[in-house]
This record gives sequence, structure tokens and C-alpha cells, in this order.
Amino acid sequence: MHLAYLGEETLTNLIMEVRCKMPALTVKYHLDIPTPSLNNNKGDIDRINASLERASGLRRIHWPLSLLGSISGTLWLPSNQITITAAHDGDRLRVIAVDPGDTTSSHFGLAIDLGTTVVAAELIDIRTGQCLAAPSEVNGQIEYGEDLLTRLHFAGQGDVDALRMALINTVNQLINRACGIAGIDPSHISAVCAAGNTTMTHLFLGLDPSHMRQEPFIPIINHVPILTSGELGLEIAPLAQTYIFPSAGSFLGGDLIAGSLAARMLDHDEITLLLDIGTNGEMILGNKDWLLAGAGAAGPALEGGVAECARRAEPGAIERVKIDPATLEPSYSVIGDISPIGLCGSGLVDVIAQLYLAGLLDATGRFILDKDTNRWRTVNGRTVYMLAEADSASDLPATYITEKDIQNVLRTKAAVVAALTILLDSVGLAVSDIQRVYTAGSFGVHLAVDSAIAIGLYPKLPTDRFVSLGNGSLRGAREILLNAEKIEEACQIADKITYLELNVHPGFMEIFRSAKYI
Amino acid sequence: MHLAYLGEETLTNLIMEVRCKMPALTVKYHLDIPTPSLNNNKGDIDRINASLERASGLRRIHWPLSLLGSISGTLWLPSNQITITAAHDGDRLRVIAVDPGDTTSSHFGLAIDLGTTVVAAELIDIRTGQCLAAPSEVNGQIEYGEDLLTRLHFAGQGDVDALRMALINTVNQLINRACGIAGIDPSHISAVCAAGNTTMTHLFLGLDPSHMRQEPFIPIINHVPILTSGELGLEIAPLAQTYIFPSAGSFLGGDLIAGSLAARMLDHDEITLLLDIGTNGEMILGNKDWLLAGAGAAGPALEGGVAECARRAEPGAIERVKIDPATLEPSYSVIGDISPIGLCGSGLVDVIAQLYLAGLLDATGRFILDKDTNRWRTVNGRTVYMLAEADSASDLPATYITEKDIQNVLRTKAAVVAALTILLDSVGLAVSDIQRVYTAGSFGVHLAVDSAIAIGLYPKLPTDRFVSLGNGSLRGAREILLNAEKIEEACQIADKITYLELNVHPGFMEIFRSAKYI
Repeated sequence: MHLAYLGEETLTNLIMEVRCKMPALTVKYHLDIPTPSLNNNKGDIDRINASLERASGLRRIHWPLSLLGSISGTLWLPSNQITITAAHDGDRLRVIAVDPGDTTSSHFGLAIDLGTTVVAAELIDIRTGQCLAAPSEVNGQIEYGEDLLTRLHFAGQGDVDALRMALINTVNQLINRACGIAGIDPSHISAVCAAGNTTMTHLFLGLDPSHMRQEPFIPIINHVPILTSGELGLEIAPLAQTYIFPSAGSFLGGDLIAGSLAARMLDHDEITLLLDIGTNGEMILGNKDWLLAGAGAAGPALEGGVAECARRAEPGAIERVKIDPATLEPSYSVIGDISPIGLCGSGLVDVIAQLYLAGLLDATGRFILDKDTNRWRTVNGRTVYMLAEADSASDLPATYITEKDIQNVLRTKAAVVAALTILLDSVGLAVSDIQRVYTAGSFGVHLAVDSAIAIGLYPKLPTDRFVSLGNGSLRGAREILLNAEKIEEACQIADKITYLELNVHPGFMEIFRSAKYI
Repeated sequence: MHLAYLGEETLTNLIMEVRCKMPALTVKYHLDIPTPSLNNNKGDIDRINASLERASGLRRIHWPLSLLGSISGTLWLPSNQITITAAHDGDRLRVIAVDPGDTTSSHFGLAIDLGTTVVAAELIDIRTGQCLAAPSEVNGQIEYGEDLLTRLHFAGQGDVDALRMALINTVNQLINRACGIAGIDPSHISAVCAAGNTTMTHLFLGLDPSHMRQEPFIPIINHVPILTSGELGLEIAPLAQTYIFPSAGSFLGGDLIAGSLAARMLDHDEITLLLDIGTNGEMILGNKDWLLAGAGAAGPALEGGVAECARRAEPGAIERVKIDPATLEPSYSVIGDISPIGLCGSGLVDVIAQLYLAGLLDATGRFILDKDTNRWRTVNGRTVYMLAEADSASDLPATYITEKDIQNVLRTKAAVVAALTILLDSVGLAVSDIQRVYTAGSFGVHLAVDSAIAIGLYPKLPTDRFVSLGNGSLRGAREILLNAEKIEEACQIADKITYLELNVHPGFMEIFRSAKYI
């Protein structure tokens, strides 16, 4: 069964089916502790542990000192009802919170996508699997550099902690906003699952990622142990269990592993492709028996910030464009149905595809200017194709596309094509062998598959083979919040992946150059 | 094989035999981490974990965030040699320290006896099992009260933390002294094992023990999870594993469990008795199949402080006394071979036994004053038996014994006899069925068995059945430092013990009264 065909609700139900059989990342136990007597003179905590053993089936129960102290107070309440929040850790049960009474109805987890540009979170009700809030924020590290390399360089200067704090603060803002929206107390968040690229993961942990710049491109850590939110500085329950998706190498981060988990790549016999086109064009090809990964340095074209009128997929961004082949007049749809302020990645791909199909663009990505349309304009001395005029009245900028923008997209496309070609070659497969393509990243959500195929960014396959995961990091993270057993699967994915270092692959540049055409 | 017949050295060897097969409370692994390459591009910590898995045979390795940060620094040293200090936790390995190079030769543990009056420690070299230093200090809680009840009352006032700090400070002083004597760095102490009565255990943890005063006499905790020294405030390696012996109830603490472990009571078919005569007369009777425990409120007679000239077993204390039946003249030996300043418990018992045998004392503990000896004196209006005159020149006090002192000792004796009688009755055994008597506590070390038998404090058995454990808490604690598998045995002992609540036992006072005679 494919996520593609599932709405949010069906997905939730599917997850809950599984979840009921498996423990979530944290579990709550409502206990009625027997009153002590001369015949049952076990210690308070020993009586709690006896009840916990029955409830959990685990014999080894670990308490931190900070919680032992809270007990006498809790237990001498009129009733002996308490709720224990705990984490299953193999044959251990780790107690992470104790509350008087029954608080099982307040059991929350946080899924986090540690994006280089945008950090997104989902506040999950662990009982129901429902998402209660899904805020996102610009990554506070932006002030230290737009792109990863700048931040890696900054980290190399010994300022890792500044970057860590910027990221942690962003996450804490998201926690605040999410709890505000849902109207819950942050201290009831007892589980966190985060996914990000290898650099973001390192900075989240306060580890210096700068070594990863030089050969042999070695991260400090791929498989991160479960930590507590207190260690990390997250403002929720101090002992909240925090799982961070493993990386498979410097260039293949937990975000992709989370996507593969959400795509259930290990469940399939059929060949599947996970395609995450963001700062890099990253992909994982394979099935339950093998996973092959590669990344083509794509440049940030599709994340916005490079195309002159680029915007992130946010209200005001043009996300769909059509150009009438007869009139050569464009029409477009704007996120939020307001006046356009720019183009998001999907709009960018649409307009290129439409320009080409309308004969306004040649295969090399150059405008065919003798085609007569009143959309040709000159901006700063260059010819551009104008989508929406500036509106000085309401102070709205013009939205147009330049040949340079198009070259950027074509470079990205070429990188993706080169990477995919090499991956397929190395296992002797053809594009047509790919039974399903999972597209991840905010980019993939909005992208019109036909346009992406038209310009060659997506492989030429029947459109019904394409499945949008939405935000793969968040989707994978949520699954682990609700089913800790999936941690094992995430490890297997990370360990199974063979990473092809394309930057040093001889064939790459050659294919890249020849693929820079529509 | 009985500890009794083992000197310190043989004991150490015996322990080491076992220890080599079993992991100590913490284990050190010296690793040579393979240098990374494009072919081995695992993360630094992942490469360390791979080496650790081979070395330890454990797959699940847990790191605290605080140590992850130290790695890159450590690993980019000229050599990739590091030493990991870790604790085995079921199928887990918990990393607690990382050092560059090979530090396996600096691997130390601390055994602590959390005594109400005196806190004693042993600094143990975990490689060899040798004791490097064995300092002791008066328990800093003394300023809040000489005896347990006063401190329990003080704790009930909400001043638990003052008592905790006083105890922790005492332990930190001991750590300082021990490390000074041995010339080692406290940060190389990675394991601690402590034993104390249930009240001391609670105060060590900062838990309020005052509930234990009232029926149903319930402690907050009997089985204490392994904690870190950092949580407790001990000034050694912050993540040092700290194991605290479990209690079997409010009146049967970890000190007795530690003694039973050292006495290997679960190894014996034969009936054994563990006798710890301190503030209370506590005892455990049984064999590998059953353990029965009881405590008679003995009063602090034998811990010094009550007998007028009482001293702890320290230099200057008279520890042996003989009275010549003909001349009725006393002779004595003094700890440290210096002039006497008082009587320790063993001296106290000796002098009573000798007075009785010399016909200077009747069976009720009254002086027979018409017996003619120039040792009768009058001090503050009471007749006393003078052992050593005051020496105003060197400002030494007189050492003598009063009838009140003797009554105290006889009360203690009566409590011990009453407790033992009831324990034996309840399992239908006679004194003669006891094959071995382990005496624990600093008191038991010095006590002359024949004198203790003479006044009826010890059961009437062949003297070769008596075995002195010395400090049972320290001996048991050391065994666990060197062999973590013994933790399971300590739990079994605590769980196996049936505690007879003698204070509420009808027969107790009756036997007590009739036993208040020599």
C-alpha cells in the first residue's frame, strides 16, 4: 500500500494500527499503587516498580535521581494514582516523568525537520497519531550564511556553538508556537524525533561538522544515540527521549533516511527511487535487498534565492503556470490566491516547461526572441519573460524569468540526470525499471510532475508512478514517534545504503554537460 | 571457603580470580581506531563503536551528549589510540569517559560504608583488586544529632538537604584524602559502591526518611537504581557508576545486605548467622534457601558515646582487658600502644567479662564492693572500677567503668539474645544448629570472642565458628566494584530476607528482661 494514495487521516489510521501493537518512543502508564502495610512493606518506589513491571512486562526499571525525590511527595497524596512516562530501551524501562493522578491523555511528541533553510515541526498526539500543529520557521543559522558551505566554514572557525544555539533557538520557537496553537503545556512533550542532513545533525548536537568538507569526508557521527531534550537544550520535559535519524555519510543525511523510512523502501520488492531535489539533487535507488544513493551538486536553484524572482513555496508565490500556445499569454495560480510576489520552485519548472512547449525557448535554454509576444521585457539590460507586472500601487514587485534562472534550473536538472544515470548504470538498470518514484522535500509537494518530466528533471515515466511524500523528514520522524520499533528499520536503511561519491566519479561531469539541455 | 581464613592478599586474589571472568562495575577498553578513508568513511564515533563492539561483545552502545563533543578533538590526535571507560548494563554498554591514549592503568573504584557515626571508604585499584587507601571520617551529620532518631526528626522538619549535604561533604572529604594518600586523580575514579542503613541510604539520595518512623515503617526506596556520581554530587568522574546496596526494609539496610554478600550466605547449605552489633543489634540467620532477619533496639552502648569513658576503636582506646583473679589488678592493651584515653566497645566487653570472672561483678551487673581491691573509686558520687588513673601531667583523662555503663552493655546483650532467640524459635532451630557466625561492624573486628561469649553477648558456640568480616559494608561493596554480576546476588539477598518486626513481637520484651543478666 502506498502513502501516495493515503490522505492525512488514512495515514494516521494506518500508523495507529501498527502503533497499537508497538510501543511509541515514550509510553505512559497510569498506575494505582497499593497502599503500604506491615504485610506489604515494600518501599514506595519498589511498589511502583512492581506495578510498572506488570504494566510493561519489563523487569529492569531505571530511575534518574531527580525523579526519585519527587516520589514521596507524589505518593502521599489522598489517592495513590500516578502516571509514569517511560521509554522502552531494549529490556530496560527508563522512567522519564512522574505525575500525580491520570495524565495519560496528555501525551505528546514532536517531529522536527532540521532543514538548512527552513526548520519545520509537527506536534503529534501520541495517543491518536494526530498532528495538532505544524509550524515552520526560517533556520536561525541563516544569519551565519545562506548555504551549507558558508556555515561549515563558520563552524571551522570554532563557532560551532553559535550555530548550535541558533538552531536550538529556532526549534524552541517552534515548540512554543506549536504548543500555543494546540494549547498544551510543553512539559507534556516527552518524545522528539528529528531528521536533517548530516551537517544540521552535527550542529544540532553541537559537533563540529567542518571536517566533512575535506576528503575523506568523515562525519563525527552517523548513528546518534537516543539523547534527552535536557542535554540538547530543548524546552520540553527535561528527560524527553530525543531520537535523531542516522546519516549514511557526510553527503547523505537523516532527512533522506527518514524519507526512505516513510517510503517503506525496505518493504518493496519493486525498484523504487527516492528523489529529494533541494540544495542538492539527492536520491536513493533500490528495494528491500539493496539501496544505492548518490547526490549531484545541484546548486540551490530550486530552493529559491537564486532565480531572480524566486520565493519559497509560501503565499504569493506562483506555483503553476500555463502558456497558451496560440496567444503565448501566460496564466498562473498563486499560493493563497493573492497577487503574485514571485515564483516558487514548481512555478519555475512550470514556466520553463511551458516556454519550451510554446516554442519560446530552445533546447539549450535560450529565449527564441523572434517569437512575437508582448511578454519580452528588458530588465537591467537583459531580456526577460514577464509573468506579472510590478504593481506600484500595492507595491508588488514584478515576477519574471531570465535566461540565467533557466540555466540554473537546467544545471540542477543535469545534476539529477547525471546522478540517476550513474546509479542506474552501476546496477545495470534502465529508467523504465523504476516502478515508483517518491519525491520528497517541500519542492516535491508542489511540483507538477508533467512539467518536471517535460524539462527532464524527473525521469520519463508514467505519471502514476510518481508519489509525493510531502516532507519526508517529518513523515519518517512521525512514524518513529509512534512506533519506536521503526528505529531498527532506520538503522538498517542507513547501514544498507551504498553511497556513490559522484563528485569524484569520472563519468559525472560528462553526463552532466550533455544533460544540460531540455 | 570462608573469608575468615583469608588475609587481605588472599582475599584480593580470590576476588581477582572471579573478577577476571566477570566485568567490574566499570570496564576500560584501550582501542586503536582505524583511520578513516574513502573506503571506510564511517563516522568517528561509529568507528569507535565498531571497535567497542568487538572488544565488549555488546551491540547497543550508549553515549551521553557531553562525551560526543569530546571525540573529534580526541580523534584528530597524532595517534588514534583512545581509552573508553564504560559500564555494562545488560545488553547495553554505557560510555562514561573517553581519554586519549592508553589510560587502562588508571582505573579506580571507591567502596563506601555510610555509617551513622563514622563514614569509611576504600580506594580500590580495579585492575588488581588492591586497596590503595582506607580513610574514615566522622559522619558530618553528627552536628544534627548523635543518633538516627534525632536526624530522622530533623529530616521530618524538611531539612533533608542539609543532612544530604553533610553526608556528601563527608564522602567528598574521604575521596580527597584517599586520592591524596594514593596519589591519584579523583577523575580516574569511575565506579562507586556504597552501603549503609536504610536511613543513611535515603539521606545519601536526598530522600526524606522520616516516614519510616511511623507504622507501617515504609522506606521510599529499597532497591536503588545505579546512579551517576554527578547526580549525587560526588567529586569524581561525573558519570562514574554509583551502586548503592538495596535495603530489605526500614530497619534492615544495605550494610547488612553487603555483609551477607561478603559472608556469601547464599553459597552455604549450613546455617549461618550474620551479627552486626552497633546502634542496633541486627542479625541475619539462614542459608542459601532462606534468610531471616531481625533487629533488637540495642541502644548505642557499643558504639561508644554512652559508656562514660567510651571511645571509638581508635589510637588510645583500651581494646583488651585482663583482670588477675588473685591480685584483682587489671592489665590492658591500647590501640596504637600509647597511653589510654578511654575504652572501645571490645574493651568494654572485656572488662565486664573480666570483672564477672574475677567475682567483682554479680550476674545482675552490680559491683560486689566488699571484694577488696584498690580499684574501687568514687567519681561524681558513684562507685566506679578504675582501669587507668588520670595523668594531669600529660593531661590524660581517667579510664574507668560505672554500673550504668555495664547496664547499657547488658541491655544491648539482652536485645541481641532476645532477637536471636525469637529468630531461632520461629524456624525451630537451636543455637547449636548455627554452624558459623559472621560478626560485622568495626565493633566485631576488635571484640574478643571469649569475652563476648562470657557475658552472653555472643551465642555459646565453639570459638572457631566465629568469623570476623571486619567492615562488612566495605567488604561487600568491594566485591561489587570488582564484579558487577554480584549486583544480582545482592538483590536476591534483599528479596529473600524475611524481616521479623521484633519491636512489635509479643515475646521480645519478656525474653529481653530475663536476658539482662550475665
